Amino acid sequence: MEGCMFCKILKREIPATIVYEDEISLAFRDISPKAPTHILVIPKKHIRTVVEVKEEDNSLLGHLIYVANGIAKKEGISEKGFRLVINCGLESGQSVWHIHIHLLGGRKMTWPPG
Amino acid sequence: MEGCMFCKILKREIPATIVYEDEISLAFRDISPKAPTHILVIPKKHIRTVVEVKEEDNSLLGHLIYVANGIAKKEGISEKGFRLVINCGLESGQSVWHIHIHLLGGRKMTWPPG
Repeated sequence: MEGCMFCKILKREIPATIVYEDEISLAFRDISPKAPTHILVIPKKHIRTVVEVKEEDNSLLGHLIYVANGIAKKEGISEKGFRLVINCGLESGQSVWHIHIHLLGGRKMTWPPG
Repeated sequence: MEGCMFCKILKREIPATIVYEDEISLAFRDISPKAPTHILVIPKKHIRTVVEVKEEDNSLLGHLIYVANGIAKKEGISEKGFRLVINCGLESGQSVWHIHIHLLGGRKMTWPPG
């Protein structure tokens, strides 16, 4: 999608520290990390928000979480713990309109989650 | 699973304000809400953490997010926005060892997410 920052990262038009890629997803480090590990996992398909995910794409979202799991393992935070966050819409603070899962870990997370 | 609080809610052995149920998931209000809407969506299958989800269960996690989406719509927070949070492991603050997705909305969420 033209103008989408994450689509530009996918096309390597904007640099990013990519940590994982497969046919349907890409993962890269957040440019403004809020934890020692802070990685974004995105689908290659441009979908604006979680609200726009159709039922037939359920396995797509599941795959993104599966990928986040694998990255957590590689980052050495799988056993200690990590938090997954998906922002959807303005009040949540979503700022890039291409679905992304935040994977945060490497420190104790606090509650409430924002 | 014996001793699991969420399995007890599933079996109606512990009361909860249930807002949604289908064959594979249940959703109920968090007993200690951190936002005007704070609902937990859980699978009926007892899985301790996201780390233990196998690849063939990808659609299960996707379904939980799909259910959260539908609830957000019913709660009237779908357009304004909401945050989904999954805690996995001790450092994330996971306290009940049965997978659950937090759906939070009805107020502006802050950053970082805990």
